[in-house]
This record gives sequence, C-alpha cells and structure tokens, in this order.
Amino acid sequence: MRNVAMLGGGMTRFAKYEDRGLKDLSHEAVNEALKAAGIDKSALNIAIVGNAAAGLVTGQECIRAQVILRSMGIDKIPMVNTENACASSSTALQVAWLYVASGMYDVALALGVEKMYTPDKGKAMATFSAGVDLEELRAIMEQLKPPSEQKAGAESGAGKSRSLFMDIYAAGARAHMAKYGTTKEQYAKIASKNHNNGSLNPHAQYRERYTVAEILASPLIAEPLTRLMCAPIGDGAAAAVLASEDVVRRYTSDPVWIRGTALVSGSDTRSTDDDGTGGRAAHEALKMAGMAIDDINVMEVHDASAPAELLLYEDLGLCKPGEGGRLIDEGVTEIGGRVPVNTSGGLLAKGHPVGATGCAQAFEIWLQLKGLAGERQVKGAKTGMTHNGGGMVRGEAAATTVHVFSV
Amino acid sequence: MRNVAMLGGGMTRFAKYEDRGLKDLSHEAVNEALKAAGIDKSALNIAIVGNAAAGLVTGQECIRAQVILRSMGIDKIPMVNTENACASSSTALQVAWLYVASGMYDVALALGVEKMYTPDKGKAMATFSAGVDLEELRAIMEQLKPPSEQKAGAESGAGKSRSLFMDIYAAGARAHMAKYGTTKEQYAKIASKNHNNGSLNPHAQYRERYTVAEILASPLIAEPLTRLMCAPIGDGAAAAVLASEDVVRRYTSDPVWIRGTALVSGSDTRSTDDDGTGGRAAHEALKMAGMAIDDINVMEVHDASAPAELLLYEDLGLCKPGEGGRLIDEGVTEIGGRVPVNTSGGLLAKGHPVGATGCAQAFEIWLQLKGLAGERQVKGAKTGMTHNGGGMVRGEAAATTVHVFSV
Repeated sequence: MRNVAMLGGGMTRFAKYEDRGLKDLSHEAVNEALKAAGIDKSALNIAIVGNAAAGLVTGQECIRAQVILRSMGIDKIPMVNTENACASSSTALQVAWLYVASGMYDVALALGVEKMYTPDKGKAMATFSAGVDLEELRAIMEQLKPPSEQKAGAESGAGKSRSLFMDIYAAGARAHMAKYGTTKEQYAKIASKNHNNGSLNPHAQYRERYTVAEILASPLIAEPLTRLMCAPIGDGAAAAVLASEDVVRRYTSDPVWIRGTALVSGSDTRSTDDDGTGGRAAHEALKMAGMAIDDINVMEVHDASAPAELLLYEDLGLCKPGEGGRLIDEGVTEIGGRVPVNTSGGLLAKGHPVGATGCAQAFEIWLQLKGLAGERQVKGAKTGMTHNGGGMVRGEAAATTVHVFSV
Repeated sequence: MRNVAMLGGGMTRFAKYEDRGLKDLSHEAVNEALKAAGIDKSALNIAIVGNAAAGLVTGQECIRAQVILRSMGIDKIPMVNTENACASSSTALQVAWLYVASGMYDVALALGVEKMYTPDKGKAMATFSAGVDLEELRAIMEQLKPPSEQKAGAESGAGKSRSLFMDIYAAGARAHMAKYGTTKEQYAKIASKNHNNGSLNPHAQYRERYTVAEILASPLIAEPLTRLMCAPIGDGAAAAVLASEDVVRRYTSDPVWIRGTALVSGSDTRSTDDDGTGGRAAHEALKMAGMAIDDINVMEVHDASAPAELLLYEDLGLCKPGEGGRLIDEGVTEIGGRVPVNTSGGLLAKGHPVGATGCAQAFEIWLQLKGLAGERQVKGAKTGMTHNGGGMVRGEAAATTVHVFSV
C-alpha cells in the first residue's frame, strides 16, 4: 500500500436551498476542492461519489456520479457510486483511498452530495428513515417512543413528524442518564459548544450562538432532545481530492496524509447496550495509522444529536464509559481544550445533508491541519480524525467509518 | 497487488417472482456461492453489494447490503453498497477485487441483486429509465423514436410502454444497418443463439429455443427490435466469493483467477458513432491480464438487445468495424465456434435483473472455467471475459466494466 494524501477539499455551505440541485451543489464543492488541491480536473483518474437518497428526493435513482460529473466536463474516468446512508461519502473516501493506496490510480476524487430539502416534508423525513431496514421500521418506531407517547399508538402525529433516528438517539440518551446519571444539561452543553463552533464556520447551516439555557428552552423533539440538540435537514456537497505519495509533491510541499481508515458494520450479537461500532472502527483506523486515540489533536464526530457526541466520547475512547458528561463539563472537547471535537459545528450546526457529511468532516480536518480554519483554528493541530455513522440495522450502525489524518 | 481468485459463485434462477424479495433472493445466491467456494460465511472479511433500483421498486433506498446480509447472519464486517445502474454488481466485483488485491482483506463477497418485477409495470419500466440523467430523459425519448412514431409526439403510448433503452438500442441497430448493410436477420440470429444457449441453462429466465423466423415474427418493440431480441424484466441475485493468493489454496487446488479488471465511464467528446466504452474497458483489462482479445475462450457480454451484442463484437475487437454480421453468420460466437459468446443465454434469455447481471456473468465464466457448465460447456475453456454496461449519459455508457479470468 502506498501513502495517500488529501490534497485538497471543498464544500458548499450547508443550507436549505430552494433552487439548487445535485449538479449545482456538487460543481461548487468539486471546483473548490480542485482549487484547494491546486489541480485541474483533467488530472483526476477516478471518482467515487457518495449519496444516500437522491432516488427518493430527486428521482435520480442511478448513476448519480456520472450525471453530476459529466455535466461539469469530467468524463471518461471510472466512476463508482457508493452508498452507506449517512456514511455514504466517508465510505466513498475510503474507496477512493483504496484505489490510490493500492497503486491502481494516482489521483482520486471523493464527492458527497445530498439534496434533502423539499417542500414535501414527509419526503425529507423519509430520507432519514431510508437508513433502516424497512421491514423493521414499524416495530422500531413503536419501541423507541418516549413512554409518554406509547399510549398514543404507532401512527401518532408526533411519531411521524420527526426523524426515526431522533427517537433512537433519544432512547440512547435516556438510557445513559439512567445508567450513569448523565444530565440533560450536559447534552445541552455539547449542543451549545457545537453551535458556538458553527458560528465561526462560513459553511455552517446555522451560525447562531446559543447558551445552554437556550438549548434547553428550544422545542422538545423527544425527551431529552430539544430541537437545538438535533441535526437539521439540509442540502449540500463536499469533496476531497486524494493523491498518491508518488505524485503528491507535484502539487504541495506539506501534504495532509490519510494515515488510517476503517469501515465496520454493526453486530447482531453485541454484548453491551452501546453501539460499539465507533470504538471498533477507531481501533482499526488508529492501528493502521500506528497511533492511539490520545495522539489525536482534533476530531469531527457524528453528532446527529447532542447525546450521540457524548456517547461517542466513551465509545471512541476519549474517556471511560460513564465519563462523557464529565468530559464536556471540563471543557476538554471545546476549542482550546485538550481535544476539540466538532470544530466545524458538527452535524448539529454545520448541518447534515447525509451523503455529504463524510467528505465535509474530512474537509474540516484538512483545514485544521493546514492551519486554514480561521477563527476556529486549533493551534498546532498535527493530527485529526473523523467518525461518521450511517444507517441502522437491529439497533446498531449499518456502516461506521473512522479516518485518521496527520501532517 | 496480489493475485485474486474467484473461489466460487452462485445465483438464483432469474425470473419474475411474485413472492420473493431482495433478502430471499440474495440469501439463495450467497449460500450457493459460499457452498461453491467451500467456505463458511464466517470467513468473509468484507462484502460489496451492487443494486440499482431497490429504492424505486421496493422502497429500500439505503444500506441494502446491511439489510440483506445481516438478516442472514453476516454482520460486523465492512459493507459497501455500490451502484452503477446495470453494471452495479460488476462494479461491486471490481471493488471487492481491489480490497483483496491491495492486501487489505483476504476474502470478499460480491453480491448483485435486483427486484424489478412488480404488478406496477410503470415502476418496472422506470427502473430501466433510472439509468439516465433525468434532465436529459425527455429529449432523448423524442430523439430516439423510430421515424414512424415521431409524429405521434413525445407522450405516445408506444414511447411509454417500453424501456427507453430499447429505443436507444434500436437507433443504434438502425444506424449500423444503414452504414454497413447489417440485416435484421443477423440480429435475429444472435437472439436465436442466445435463446438456444439459455435453453441449456437451469438458471435462465427463458428456456425456450427459437428459430430466426420465430425471433423475427415476435411482436415489434422498436424497429428493428422484436420482443425476443430484448432482455426481459426479472428478479434475481448472483454472488461471487473472492480470495487472495495467500489463502486460496486452503479452499481449492485449481483456482479461477481474476487476471484483469477495468471500469470506464463514457466520454462526452467521442469521435465515432459507436459507444466505445467496451473497447476501452477491454483494452485496459486485457492489458492488466497480459492478454489479447484473441486469447479469450468464452465471453459474456451485455446483450440487453440482440443488436448490442453484434455491435460489441466490433467494439471489443472480435472483428473489424462492420463485420459483426459476418461473425454471427459464420457461427464464430456459437457454442462450438472459436469464441462462444453468452453461453449462459445472455441477458436476452438468462434475463437481466439489472443489479444482478454483473455477478451472474462472472458466475457463468467461473462455471465454464471450472468445467461445470453442463450441456453448454465450452470444451477446454481456460480463459474468459465479462463485459457489462450500465446507464447512459449523453449517448454513451455511464459505466462499463470488463473482467478477465483464467485458470
């Protein structure tokens, strides 16, 4: 295997766009990534495109990569469409890495794009629910409702007007509170941190700062989740250009390297209550990188809800089980703390157009390691990590990726 | 890169199944492939799953691999969903090959599955049309209609009751007739050959033999295509188990090797009237294999229509441009000829559940090279090749794969 660098990245601002589609969003992200990489599109050898749900939302069920990229004059090169729900483009990134690391190609494009916003709110919600086994869906929805709603029946309005995944996250958050005494305020602190970070990121969907009290006072989605603790629906694209060690010096003298990459799927026979895929993926990726979790200076993790980030502190090994609350209380994961998490604003504030998220996370780490993160720069960051989770089957992630970067 | 063997393959019979879904079909194919490989599912390190249109047909838009495989007890291992329209599972096969060839994993599963048949015929047709840029769709349909229909307007019943792709194939067939004097009888001979081959294949959707006269007498779809010159709608799954050279001897003493693999996308600036992606992909894959087209003993090609196979003879280099008609007249591509093509019955007779086709082609070549093809066995076959095309953007294939095999 050869070493592979992330030569550049780019993204659109994540937002609800009334007039922008897959092509338009992608073109902006790809052009930004090429520009950041200092490379022309003619230098690309292969493109891997991650998208989760364009078939549902836009009707473009097949060959999304080719439709998008050929419309901007990228043709002839091999293109692979990858999908792993919310981890679609971090999966694309691994596959692109593999085509380069293996020696098959020298320069690869990974692109993630998602169009979720539509006036048809049911359709946008269906996008989230697409990430589960449809045959399990009804049973899961009943099981995961907060106790106060269970009497209302499976078809209650409340159950249908929010994402299934928020019910899943809420159930996990309640279990953690019961087991470890974690508080709703601690979850709110994570949301406040990420919204504050997002206010410093020009690509973030939400750029407002919120206090813990404001997070707690926002409308309840599913106990203990308030609206500001949940990632929004939005559109966007993000791209990364990868290059082999054999060609990278043509383009830059200080590359950001992809040191480790892991993709795992959940288990049907896990022995704990927590989704352990993050820990497994981190273990594998860090092993490949020859690093330990304590070596990581900055991290983007899959905070589709604020409690998810807290649980991930423990799953990824930033602290012991049950100590996630303490970690946020002590400010360890704030910008300026020992290991800032979600400096971009995370999914909560930067937004979460699902197929775009993986590449957007990589872009944030690339910015940090290049020293280009502006007001949210982590001083002296030399190493970074992304964690991205996608879909769910029988209560555990369908696809979880961890990628490790260093200068 | 390491050498990679195809250790085993398996498939369902392709058919219109009223009561079988993605899981059920896939389980049969995967279990057959594991059995043929002599390997337990616990030995799998990674799974790559190709499917084109389950989102449209079944509603399972995301994480199809995980939904399918975890329901049969395959979990924890990384899973990637790949899509490239009709080339979805030949793309999966390349990605699976890459994970093994690169040294990342030793044993990989590639699976292709498609559920197309539904009482809603419009939905089944939409599956085919999903393989184009939706924004191009309307213009293409008008442009490609046979002259006799163009007056009827874009929304004529005839235009809507058949696949868009058959209009595209018909236009290509007419152009070849005009340019080279190719005859409708020659196209019918290809269909007759493939239906005769299919009659020898227990996995084929259609197992009837048809004379050239019967092919020509079947209902007209789009001049010069009759119904028996067009691949049917159907359901099915096909799987392949790949193993690295480092572990393959544990399982077999006479492996079938994947010697070359190529994936290309069409060009927007091609200089000829023919889709040249087959030739480009074959050139690349044969080069990787260190072989020439004349070295190939048996071949599966993407005969979604009979004329497509004739044009592919030329594109792939079995004969010079314009000589495809002569090739079928001389029986070169029949079983018993110099290079039998589509011994399985091809897409025309074996069927074409789009996402399953790539792995099914590989399975046929595996059977031939193992000497397990029964009545349709090509004597002494030591080398084989598959060609699979998927989707279309601006008149040229979105994804074309060629894989080269040898004992």
